[in-house]
Amino acid sequence: MSSARLPRDSDNDYTHEAAARRRAFIESQGQCSLEHVGSYSFDPATLPGNIENFTGVVQMPLGYAGPLRVIGEHAHGEFYVPMATTEGTLVASYSRGMRLTREAGGVTTTVVDDAMQRSPVFAFDDARGAREFGHWINQHFTDIKAAAESTTRSGRLRNIEQYAASRMLYLRFNYTTGDAAGQNLCGKATFAACRWILDNYPGAIGRYFLSGNMDTDKKHSQLNTLHSRGKRVIAEVTLPRDLLRDLMRTTPEAMYAARMASQLGGLMAGAVHNGVHPANGIASVFIATGQDEANVAESHASLVHAEITPEGDYYYSVTLPSLIVATYGGGTGLATQRECLESIGCYGEGKARKLAEIVAATVLCGEISLGAAVVSEEWVSSHDTYGRNRP
Amino acid sequence: MSSARLPRDSDNDYTHEAAARRRAFIESQGQCSLEHVGSYSFDPATLPGNIENFTGVVQMPLGYAGPLRVIGEHAHGEFYVPMATTEGTLVASYSRGMRLTREAGGVTTTVVDDAMQRSPVFAFDDARGAREFGHWINQHFTDIKAAAESTTRSGRLRNIEQYAASRMLYLRFNYTTGDAAGQNLCGKATFAACRWILDNYPGAIGRYFLSGNMDTDKKHSQLNTLHSRGKRVIAEVTLPRDLLRDLMRTTPEAMYAARMASQLGGLMAGAVHNGVHPANGIASVFIATGQDEANVAESHASLVHAEITPEGDYYYSVTLPSLIVATYGGGTGLATQRECLESIGCYGEGKARKLAEIVAATVLCGEISLGAAVVSEEWVSSHDTYGRNRP
Amino acid sequence: MSSARLPRDSDNDYTHEAAARRRAFIESQGQCSLEHVGSYSFDPATLPGNIENFTGVVQMPLGYAGPLRVIGEHAHGEFYVPMATTEGTLVASYSRGMRLTREAGGVTTTVVDDAMQRSPVFAFDDARGAREFGHWINQHFTDIKAAAESTTRSGRLRNIEQYAASRMLYLRFNYTTGDAAGQNLCGKATFAACRWILDNYPGAIGRYFLSGNMDTDKKHSQLNTLHSRGKRVIAEVTLPRDLLRDLMRTTPEAMYAARMASQLGGLMAGAVHNGVHPANGIASVFIATGQDEANVAESHASLVHAEITPEGDYYYSVTLPSLIVATYGGGTGLATQRECLESIGCYGEGKARKLAEIVAATVLCGEISLGAAVVSEEWVSSHDTYGRNRP
Amino acid sequence: MSSARLPRDSDNDYTHEAAARRRAFIESQGQCSLEHVGSYSFDPATLPGNIENFTGVVQMPLGYAGPLRVIGEHAHGEFYVPMATTEGTLVASYSRGMRLTREAGGVTTTVVDDAMQRSPVFAFDDARGAREFGHWINQHFTDIKAAAESTTRSGRLRNIEQYAASRMLYLRFNYTTGDAAGQNLCGKATFAACRWILDNYPGAIGRYFLSGNMDTDKKHSQLNTLHSRGKRVIAEVTLPRDLLRDLMRTTPEAMYAARMASQLGGLMAGAVHNGVHPANGIASVFIATGQDEANVAESHASLVHAEITPEGDYYYSVTLPSLIVATYGGGTGLATQRECLESIGCYGEGKARKLAEIVAATVLCGEISLGAAVVSEEWVSSHDTYGRNRP
Repeated sequence: MSSARLPRDSDNDYTHEAAARRRAFIESQGQCSLEHVGSYSFDPATLPGNIENFTGVVQMPLGYAGPLRVIGEHAHGEFYVPMATTEGTLVASYSRGMRLTREAGGVTTTVVDDAMQRSPVFAFDDARGAREFGHWINQHFTDIKAAAESTTRSGRLRNIEQYAASRMLYLRFNYTTGDAAGQNLCGKATFAACRWILDNYPGAIGRYFLSGNMDTDKKHSQLNTLHSRGKRVIAEVTLPRDLLRDLMRTTPEAMYAARMASQLGGLMAGAVHNGVHPANGIASVFIATGQDEANVAESHASLVHAEITPEGDYYYSVTLPSLIVATYGGGTGLATQRECLESIGCYGEGKARKLAEIVAATVLCGEISLGAAVVSEEWVSSHDTYGRNRP
Repeated sequence: MSSARLPRDSDNDYTHEAAARRRAFIESQGQCSLEHVGSYSFDPATLPGNIENFTGVVQMPLGYAGPLRVIGEHAHGEFYVPMATTEGTLVASYSRGMRLTREAGGVTTTVVDDAMQRSPVFAFDDARGAREFGHWINQHFTDIKAAAESTTRSGRLRNIEQYAASRMLYLRFNYTTGDAAGQNLCGKATFAACRWILDNYPGAIGRYFLSGNMDTDKKHSQLNTLHSRGKRVIAEVTLPRDLLRDLMRTTPEAMYAARMASQLGGLMAGAVHNGVHPANGIASVFIATGQDEANVAESHASLVHAEITPEGDYYYSVTLPSLIVATYGGGTGLATQRECLESIGCYGEGKARKLAEIVAATVLCGEISLGAAVVSEEWVSSHDTYGRNRP
Repeated sequence: MSSARLPRDSDNDYTHEAAARRRAFIESQGQCSLEHVGSYSFDPATLPGNIENFTGVVQMPLGYAGPLRVIGEHAHGEFYVPMATTEGTLVASYSRGMRLTREAGGVTTTVVDDAMQRSPVFAFDDARGAREFGHWINQHFTDIKAAAESTTRSGRLRNIEQYAASRMLYLRFNYTTGDAAGQNLCGKATFAACRWILDNYPGAIGRYFLSGNMDTDKKHSQLNTLHSRGKRVIAEVTLPRDLLRDLMRTTPEAMYAARMASQLGGLMAGAVHNGVHPANGIASVFIATGQDEANVAESHASLVHAEITPEGDYYYSVTLPSLIVATYGGGTGLATQRECLESIGCYGEGKARKLAEIVAATVLCGEISLGAAVVSEEWVSSHDTYGRNRP
Repeated sequence: MSSARLPRDSDNDYTHEAAARRRAFIESQGQCSLEHVGSYSFDPATLPGNIENFTGVVQMPLGYAGPLRVIGEHAHGEFYVPMATTEGTLVASYSRGMRLTREAGGVTTTVVDDAMQRSPVFAFDDARGAREFGHWINQHFTDIKAAAESTTRSGRLRNIEQYAASRMLYLRFNYTTGDAAGQNLCGKATFAACRWILDNYPGAIGRYFLSGNMDTDKKHSQLNTLHSRGKRVIAEVTLPRDLLRDLMRTTPEAMYAARMASQLGGLMAGAVHNGVHPANGIASVFIATGQDEANVAESHASLVHAEITPEGDYYYSVTLPSLIVATYGGGTGLATQRECLESIGCYGEGKARKLAEIVAATVLCGEISLGAAVVSEEWVSSHDTYGRNRP
C-alpha cells in the first residue's frame, strides 16, 4: 500500500499550482498524462463550494439544438438549447423534434408546482407517542416555520407533510427556494427547525435523524411523482397530421400505436415512468447549465399523455413531476455553465421557472423525435421486408 | 420568428472554424459571450459520433478522491478516482468513505452478471398468434443469433426473454458486448435479427417495433433490477467497530438504526431503491470517464444490505444491478475522458469490469460516508439539544 | 347457443322460491347438484343490496383463533377471532402467534388515520386550464363540501387532494365515513359535488369522469400506502427473548436475520409491501365479518418494522396503511356475518375502529408465527443437515 | 385475563359435537348467538386440511352471472359463473358485461404460462461465495430436480431462476403442479431439494431459509407480473361499435378516453396494475369455487390493453399474469365449493386451465361493464349539466 497521498495546499487549495501539483501526482501514480485535464480557462478561486481536490476539468463537448419555440409563461420565443453530451445523434435528434414542434407553432409550457424538501424522522416509544407528536407539530407550525426560516434569506417553509409508520413519524418539510435548487438551504432550515422541536417538545423523543429518506434525495420515488420535488412542469403541443407526414413520414395513428405498445411494455417491466428517454435531454442540459448532475435520478421521471384529436392531429404532452433546476447557486456560476445559462437568458435570480420551461419543452421534442424514429423504422421495414412475406 | 439558423459546414462540420462560427452565432442571438465555452484543447475532428453542432465545451471541474482500496477480481489495489462534479463536499465525502474502507482493508467487489438489451415487440391478430410466435422464436434461436451477430464483432446474443401481454409478444435480447456499453451494437444486431424474423416467420405479423420498452433504456425499471442491464456488481466491506468509533465517531448500532429508519421511509415513499445517494458517485465518475451521462437513470439503482456481525462489526454491501459502463467506444476516447480512464488504468479493451468494480466500490464509500454523517449529526444534536430536554 | 336464460322473478326475486328455481336451472344446465348450495338458514329478503340472482350460499368453514389479547384504544381485552378459510394451518398458525403475543402482554394497536376516497378527473384544453380549475376548487371548498355532504348522513368531506398531469386535474376527495366502509357513500357524495362543480365552474371543462383511478379502488397503490384508504392502523408488540426461546424455539437474532433476507428479496422482486402474508389473516376475517372480500387488494399492504431492543428482546410492528373495514352496511348485517361481528363485540355503529384494531393485531400475530416457522425450520435443518457437512 | 380456553377434542376434533361445543363457548364468551353459523349441511369429517377449530360456517350469498360465452382452448361454450359476494351490483354488473361480450361473439381466452414457486435463499461469507454456489446449482439441476420431485406425484420442477444480492443468492424454483394450486407441493419439494443441496454442496453455506420472499407468496410483485405465479391467461374480445351504442349507450371513443384518463391516474398513483377492478370478479369466483381467498393479493394484477380498430370497433384485452386457481385439492372438495365447480364443469383433474379461462373471461366482462358505466354517467352528466353551462 502506497504511503503517498494526494497533495493539498492547506493555505489555499484553489490555485493553478495546487491543481498542477495534483495532476503531477496522479500522472506519476497512474503513469498517465493529464494534459487535457489541465487545460481550462477559468480561475480556480471561483471553485470553493463546487469541488474539493480540484485537479483540472473534464471537457464535455457542447452542441446547440434548435431553435426551440417555447410558448411559456416565463420562457417565450425561440431558444437555442445548450446540450453537453458524448452520445452521438442526441443533439441531432432533439433538433429534429424542435423543428417539428416549431413548425407546429411551438411548445406550450406550464409550471404547476414548485417545492424542495428535507424529511427528518422521529422515533418514539410507541405509535401513540408518534401520533401525539404529529398533533403537536401541527399546532406549532408557526413556530417551526419561524425557526426554519431564520436560517435562510430565500427559503420559505410552505407546509409539513406527515407519514406514520411503526413508532416513527416521518415529516416532509416543503420549501419554496427561489432560484436555487435549494437542497442545502432546506437541510439547514430543517436542521434549525428540528433543534427547535427537540428543545420544545414536552414529550420524550427516542431518536431523530435529519433525513428519513422521504425527501427522496438523489433517487426516483412515487412520492416525488405525486407531490413533486423541484418544479412540476407540463409541456404540450398539437402536431398537425400533415406536418407529421411531411417532416416525419408518419401518422398520428402509427405514432400512437407505438406509444401504446411501449407503454404496456414499460408497465409490465415496472418502469418508473411512461416516457421514452427524458434522461437524455435532461442530463445534457443539466451538465451544460451547471445543475447537479445526480439530480437526473429524480428529474428523469415523466408522465406522457397523448391523444389523437377529433381533427386527426396528434396532441402530445410531457409532465415532469420532479424537475430540479437552478439559475443561481450550485454550479450555475462556473465559467462555461454561466455562459450556457446566459445564452438562453437564464442566469441569475428570477429565472428558474424559465429554465424549467425550456427543459420541459426540450424533453418533449426528444420524446417525439425518438418516437417518430421508431415508427418510421417500422415503416421502412414494412416496405423492405414485409413485402416479400405477404403476397 | 427569426429566420437565421445555426451555421453548419456541409463539407466538414467538425473543425475549429465551424465551432467558432456557431459560437459567434449564439453570442449574437443570445447577446452573450461564449469565451470559456470556446476554450478547449482537443481536435474537433475527434468528435464525430459523439456530438452534433459542436460549439465548444463545458468545463466540468474534476477532483480526485481517494485513494480507494479495491479487492476486486479485475481491479486490485489503490486507485485515485476521478470525479467531475459541481456539488461541493461530494469529493470530500467520498474521500472520507474511501479512507474508512481503506483502513478497514479495502472494498471487495464482484461482478456477477453482464448483459445489454434491445427489446422489440411484435403484435398479432390475437394472443394465440403471439404465443405461437414465441414457440417459433425458441425453435429458431440459432438462426436468430446468427443474424444478430452478423452485424457485430464483439456482441454475442446470449438469450432471448419473452413476455406476453395482450396480443403482443415482447422479446428481450440479451447480449454480451465486450468493453463497450453496447446500446448501439444491440440495436443494430436486434434490427438484423428482426429482419430475419420478419423474412422467415411463416405466420402473419401485424405490427413490429424495434423497441417495446422492455429494454428499459434510459429509465429505471424493476426488470432491470431483477435481470440487470449492464453489469451487476456487488461491493462489500466489514468495518471494525473501533474504526467506526475512531474515524466516524459513531457505532455500528447507530448507523444501522439510521439505515433501518431510512429504509422504511424509502419503502413508504415508493423509492426505487434502498440506498442513499449512489447517483452522486455514479454521475461524477460517469462524466469524468466519458460514460453516457443519461445512464445514471438506470445505473443509480441499488440494493443495500447491512448487518451487525456477531463480533459487533458492521458488514455493509451495495449491489448495483444495472451499472452501465464502457472503456471503449462512446465518449471514452475523448481527450480528457480518456486521460481520466487512463489514470485508473481503465482505458480500452478488457477493462470494463475493472471500471465496474471501481465504480461499485466508490458508491459503497459514498453510502457509508453520508450514512455516518447523518448519524453523527444526531449524536451532536443529542448532546446539544436532547440534554436540556431530559433531566 | 342455448336460448334458455337464468330465471328471475320480476315481482320479488329475493325469495326461497326464486333461489330454488335458479338452482334447478343451473342443475339442469350444468348437469350437477346444488344441494348444499341450497342449504342456508336465513331469509333471502335480507339480501337486496348484497347480491343479485341469489341462488344459495357458499358454506365457508369458520374457525376461531385465539384468544388474542389487544391493548387498543377501541378494542381492549381478549378476543376469539372468527376466521373463514379453506386453507389448512391458517387458523392454527394465527392461534400460535396469538398465544405468543398474549404471553408477551398483548398487542398494542393505534388507529392513526381514517378516510375513504373517490377521485374524479377533469380534462381541459390545456394544462393552464387545469391549473386554473385547481385554484377555483380550493377557493370553493366550502360550497363543494356542502354539495357533497347533502347526499349523506354520516359522510364528511375532509379535504380534496389535487394531482396535475397533462391537461387533466385529478381530484381525490377524502371523506370520513363513520362505521361504513363508505365507497358508495363517497361515490354519491362526489357525484353531487361534481355536478355542483360542473354547474358553477365559469370556465370550459372538456371532459369529466367520476373516477380517474386515483382512489385507487380495488387495487394496491403507493398512493394508498402514503395517504391511506380506509384505516391506517399500527400494531406493536415486544417479545421477550426467553418467551421466543420457550415457545418458538428461536431467538430475536434468528428471526431478525430471516426478516432482513426476506425484506431484501421482496425489494428485489418489486413486492408491494415488506410483510409476509397479511392477506391471509385479512381475507379470512373479512369473509367472516361481511367485509368486501375484494378489498383484500388494498388492505393487504403493510409496512413491517422490527428491532432487537437494547435488552435483547424483539420489538415487532405492522402498519396497515389501507385497512378497509366496516361494522355497518355492506355485508355486515347478513346472518352469519353479523353473528361473527357480534362474537367480538363489533357489530353496528361506533365499532369500526375496534374492528380495525382487532384485524391489525391479528395480522401481526400471523406475521410472527410464520416468521418463526421459517426460522425454526432452518434451525432443524441446521442440526439434521448442516451437521454432516461441517466437520 | 380469562383462563377459559377454546374447547378441543383431542380424539377427533372434526365432529358436529366439537363444533357445537366451540359455538357454545364462543356464545358464552361473547354473549352472542352463533345460530346461523351452526347451520351447515356437510360432514365436518371432510374438513381436515382445510381448517382448524372448526366452529361452523359463514354463509356467503351466491349468485350466478351470465351466461358467459368463452372461446377458449379448455373452456368452450356458455357458462353460468358462480360468484359469492356481499357487494350489491357486482353480479348484475358482471352479467351486463357478459351479455355484451356474448352478443359480440364471446371472449377468446389463452393460457400462455403456468408455474408455481418456492424461493429459498442461501447466504455465504461473501458475494463470490454466492456466485460460486449459483454455478454449482446450474451444474446439478438434474439431481436437484430428482430430489424435489421425489416428494410429489404431480409436481415437476421446470427451472430455477437465480437472483443475486449482497452475499446472498435467491433461488426461485418453478414447478408445474397439475390441477392443484400447488403452494404446499412446491414447499415440500423445495424443502427436499434444499436438503439435498445442503447435504451435497462442497462449500460453506452460512444460512438458509426456505423462503427468501421472491415467491412472492400472498402479495403482489412486479416479478410475478413478469414471470407469472399460477396461470398467465389472456382474455380478448372485439366489441362492435353498434353493439356498444345499442347496449351500453356509448362509443369506443368515449370508453377509450375514460380508459386513458384512468390509466394515467393509476400510473401517477403508483397503482400496481392498469385494470379497474379485477379483484371483484376474482374474489367472488375464488370464494365460490374453494380457491385460497388470500391469493386475490397475487391474482388481482392485470395488464389491460385496448385499441379502437381501423373499422371503428373496440378491441379489449385483459392479461392476468398471476392467476392462481385449482380444481383439485385445497378447498375445491368442500361441499358447496365442489358443487359450484361442478356447475361449470371444472371439478377435479384436468380442469385447472378451463377454470383459469373462465375466470379471465369473467374479469374482462367486469372491466368492460364498469368502464362503460363510468362513461355513460359522464354522458348523462353531459346532457344534464354541461348543457346549461355551454350556450
